[in-house]
Amino acid sequence: MDYTIKNRIWIMQDDAVFLGKGRISLLKAIADFSSLNKAAKSMNMSYNKAIKIIHEVNDLAEKQVVISSTGGKGGGGTQLTPYGKKLIEAYETINTNCNLFLKEELKKLKKL
Amino acid sequence: MDYTIKNRIWIMQDDAVFLGKGRISLLKAIADFSSLNKAAKSMNMSYNKAIKIIHEVNDLAEKQVVISSTGGKGGGGTQLTPYGKKLIEAYETINTNCNLFLKEELKKLKKL
Repeated sequence: MDYTIKNRIWIMQDDAVFLGKGRISLLKAIADFSSLNKAAKSMNMSYNKAIKIIHEVNDLAEKQVVISSTGGKGGGGTQLTPYGKKLIEAYETINTNCNLFLKEELKKLKKL
Repeated sequence: MDYTIKNRIWIMQDDAVFLGKGRISLLKAIADFSSLNKAAKSMNMSYNKAIKIIHEVNDLAEKQVVISSTGGKGGGGTQLTPYGKKLIEAYETINTNCNLFLKEELKKLKKL
């Protein structure tokens, strides 16, 4: 028997969740599909829920995260801003670093 | 506006949760009251749920965490073992260290 450790992190803006695991997945799907509709479908999420989340994320962020364009050549779509892409990278780096940190910390339990 | 970070950690034994925030609270209440009944009540938890959790914790732990005695002078009661006390301390140390670590990591978001 050997203990392991699991963690979840949330980036908050005051008392509101700004980014968590689910929101990051949605943002990554938007980057993949360049379409909020396709991104939502790929996560079995309703379009209405996805658009609500995106509005919340944009409202809470220090800079715009997701941008939508309508019509024009290619018929518009939904994209991450450069800030949005950097946010995802930073969240994932923090998450990975945290897992490595906790793996070391867990050794405390083995010495009890 | 300023981002903050929130985290939760779970100590696992294979795929089963061994210790999380709620279980640690129950263990601390047992230490405070020396009674599983009083500890459960203090958390608005049913006695049955509390006893189920305690059995799970003892089963998953590498050494016994909670010990119950019946009858005798003082009428018995429920106590943490020395290992149980060390586990709580270790969990809380890991949690505090993780919060401090994440506070530093969060600075990455401020540089975006």
